[in-house]
Amino acid sequence: MDTKKLAERLAEAGQSHILQFWDQLSPEEQAEMSLDLKNMNFIEINNFFKNAMKISGQSSQEKVDSRMEPVPREVLGSVTRDSGCLKEWEKEGLRCISENKVAVLLLAGGQGTRLGVPYPKGMYDVGLPSHKTLFQIQAERIRRLEQLAEKLHAKKCCIPWYIMTSGRTMDMTKEFFLQHKYFGLKKENVLFFQQGMLPAMDFNGKIILEGKGKLAMAPDGNGGLYRALGTQKIIDDMKKRGISCIHVYCVDNILVKVADPAFIGFCSLKGADCGAKVVEKTNPTEAVGVVCKVDGRYQVVEYSEITLATAEKRSLDGRLMFNAGNIANHFFTLEFLSEIVRTYEPQLQHHVAQKKIPYVNTQGQLIKPDKPNGIKMEKFVFDIFQFAKKFVVYEVLREDEFSPLKNADSQDGKDNPTTARHSLMSLHHRWILNAGGNFVDENGTHIPAIPSLKDGTDLPIKCEICPLVSYGGEGLEHLVSGRAFQPNLMIDESGVHELVKNGL
Amino acid sequence: MDTKKLAERLAEAGQSHILQFWDQLSPEEQAEMSLDLKNMNFIEINNFFKNAMKISGQSSQEKVDSRMEPVPREVLGSVTRDSGCLKEWEKEGLRCISENKVAVLLLAGGQGTRLGVPYPKGMYDVGLPSHKTLFQIQAERIRRLEQLAEKLHAKKCCIPWYIMTSGRTMDMTKEFFLQHKYFGLKKENVLFFQQGMLPAMDFNGKIILEGKGKLAMAPDGNGGLYRALGTQKIIDDMKKRGISCIHVYCVDNILVKVADPAFIGFCSLKGADCGAKVVEKTNPTEAVGVVCKVDGRYQVVEYSEITLATAEKRSLDGRLMFNAGNIANHFFTLEFLSEIVRTYEPQLQHHVAQKKIPYVNTQGQLIKPDKPNGIKMEKFVFDIFQFAKKFVVYEVLREDEFSPLKNADSQDGKDNPTTARHSLMSLHHRWILNAGGNFVDENGTHIPAIPSLKDGTDLPIKCEICPLVSYGGEGLEHLVSGRAFQPNLMIDESGVHELVKNGL
Repeated sequence: MDTKKLAERLAEAGQSHILQFWDQLSPEEQAEMSLDLKNMNFIEINNFFKNAMKISGQSSQEKVDSRMEPVPREVLGSVTRDSGCLKEWEKEGLRCISENKVAVLLLAGGQGTRLGVPYPKGMYDVGLPSHKTLFQIQAERIRRLEQLAEKLHAKKCCIPWYIMTSGRTMDMTKEFFLQHKYFGLKKENVLFFQQGMLPAMDFNGKIILEGKGKLAMAPDGNGGLYRALGTQKIIDDMKKRGISCIHVYCVDNILVKVADPAFIGFCSLKGADCGAKVVEKTNPTEAVGVVCKVDGRYQVVEYSEITLATAEKRSLDGRLMFNAGNIANHFFTLEFLSEIVRTYEPQLQHHVAQKKIPYVNTQGQLIKPDKPNGIKMEKFVFDIFQFAKKFVVYEVLREDEFSPLKNADSQDGKDNPTTARHSLMSLHHRWILNAGGNFVDENGTHIPAIPSLKDGTDLPIKCEICPLVSYGGEGLEHLVSGRAFQPNLMIDESGVHELVKNGL
Repeated sequence: MDTKKLAERLAEAGQSHILQFWDQLSPEEQAEMSLDLKNMNFIEINNFFKNAMKISGQSSQEKVDSRMEPVPREVLGSVTRDSGCLKEWEKEGLRCISENKVAVLLLAGGQGTRLGVPYPKGMYDVGLPSHKTLFQIQAERIRRLEQLAEKLHAKKCCIPWYIMTSGRTMDMTKEFFLQHKYFGLKKENVLFFQQGMLPAMDFNGKIILEGKGKLAMAPDGNGGLYRALGTQKIIDDMKKRGISCIHVYCVDNILVKVADPAFIGFCSLKGADCGAKVVEKTNPTEAVGVVCKVDGRYQVVEYSEITLATAEKRSLDGRLMFNAGNIANHFFTLEFLSEIVRTYEPQLQHHVAQKKIPYVNTQGQLIKPDKPNGIKMEKFVFDIFQFAKKFVVYEVLREDEFSPLKNADSQDGKDNPTTARHSLMSLHHRWILNAGGNFVDENGTHIPAIPSLKDGTDLPIKCEICPLVSYGGEGLEHLVSGRAFQPNLMIDESGVHELVKNGL
């Protein structure tokens, strides 16, 4: 009965080939496949495909270059150029936090494929002295920030943490948090939800089978957030809690300033409904998308979409004209997000990513193609910038705030566990120096602030500061000022520890 | 007889320990050691030690931070901020070259120790498609520049090339040039000379023996240049040739614009006697010396000499205040250099570099210390900035002009053969794009200008342009405009070649 109906629905959508191996499946496999297919709307998926391919064809024809304008100075806040305002912005952000108006939303639906691990990236230990995972670091930053706001305003507050997983990461993520007692956060303030999945399609719009009874499925991009916010009633939960603004970020940035009060305060004081945190792009060929205006509306233009000549354009001050490097770190008001979910999300088309997708051929053999043979369909979290009524950009320092974990360690590798670990320890080293501490080597000789490059490897001083002690470098003077430390140095809630070789 | 005199001289200088194993040496070893010691002035060396240690003691006491001032805008020329002047500067530089007034001077006295090769760095092949060595690349750039100047001014000209080697690199360097027929340059316009060597000393001023009959010797730093210019009569040769300005650079920078006409033209039009080419330092903890004023005089302050707070200081425009990163790439007038050699060089003290120096102990055993046990004494090429009457700074783009080869390839390595090779190919890739060419993959699909980061490794498009075809990106339009190439691409004097896998 069910199977017949399913076959009809598939025939109607031109996707009957999905069942070509049905008779070869065991009853269990048939049951599983039925379950997978039951809630899929094939007509809708076909439409996604049609529209995505149309958009993709258009964008490859006409270059966006001639329509691009840089971010105007008046919508830009910069930690270097507006450093005089930082205190005020931070104060405003902490006020918002203390009034329970701020939530953070973590995009953690991706799998650690490029990183080469079979579990969600947030569970990764980059090899810090503490061996903390990305999830734990972020959780502790949230706790510290709550404490800072509470102290300043003398009332309890809470920053709820919404965590978007995908079909493939949900169970492991939830289990991990449960195991670790939510890293000291209250269970009811850590909320998991799930982004959608979409099948991969071949270039003719046929869904690809990765097994005789299994569709090739992938998460629908980090922009799947907006649909999920509606379907999983997250917007409603935020409203119930009285949230008014949300900090959205990606799990893989080890330096992320979760709910950064200065960023939130800047956006809030500017009356923005939507804001992007960026780092300055300084090399024209750096592979990073840039925030800019196209036809008068804000968007992120990906590096593959522009010519070198545009990437190399400079302003009179010598900086790259398009230098607002997107780091997937955004501010939204709840009002804006509600409007997106209600009105605009359905209008957004999927982007097409051509991929090499393993598939079973008509003989039932699994083939690993060496050229792209199909597409995955994704929405991007920044697709909604265009709908902002008041859009702002906030520029921060890369060395302080951005070091993503994307790849496994490898020769000449970038964005890997080693670079992530080093960038965090280098930041903490600088915090200690700026708080009046110092480092000496095993002979008691002072180690210069800027470590020299020995043997071609930039080995930072091993030191780590627990986020529960300091969120952004604050509160360290009384612990380190005037003192000289020998690495490894660890500062946590129980004090300052020098971990000399072979243990304590 | 000779030995007795030598023993007396050594006793007088308190260095008698050098001969402690004399009786154990074979007659050949004795002869060799006598030869080594014959021309050494031990009293002078003792004085070098005394003065160097005094200076070193002083500089570690008082921090230079409070006396530092940044380079004022009026002495700065910038390829990004003054791009409108570039054509004029270049024209002036080419005019100087066409009048035979420009020489280049290569600092190549260093050994490839960190690079891990037993021959001079200039002989290194970083693995370009052409397998050219650094020496060949630089020679061909000189030839191309001569051609450009000749074409513009319709007369033959010559850029003499002075190459400073050291005792350890001279023979191999000369032999290499001879073997390769001076890479097409005239033999009489390639002039080798030799910097001095100094013995390593222990902390008590005793010369260190690295063998029973052998002193631990090292070149006297790239600032040994100035003494050598006098002793080897290089200044006289320059005068005879009618040279008026000299471009001095280090062998290890694969992107070096030898005799860069824009740099020379800028310095010349500014009436400068001394100029430093720099790249913008953008990260406070980058290990690079910065050009600045100290007590009103220009100098390079090394990164180890300043505090983090100073390194992090920013100007109102958000840039680092001390951002003129020294890349050992300088302009001097001959008049200035003559005055240095004549008057100032002897006043310059050596800098002290603490090192782990293998030595033989009193039992005659070779010991490899694991802590610094002595010093090497070096002068630096930039020590003479303080004597300039008109000093200028010229800021260029790192990705276009600076990629030094310092280390062997290693995980997370910097400044190694891979980074050198990639930076050259990336530059040539950009030249081709800007001249209207394009790249496609094996399926004919257009490759975006900015390559994506696959598998964490930034693999550039393999392409290489012979310096004899283009010095700085010029003259490529007629070869590439409107054409699509499949890597590997090689452009040389015989034309454009697409080297498909497995050969041509």
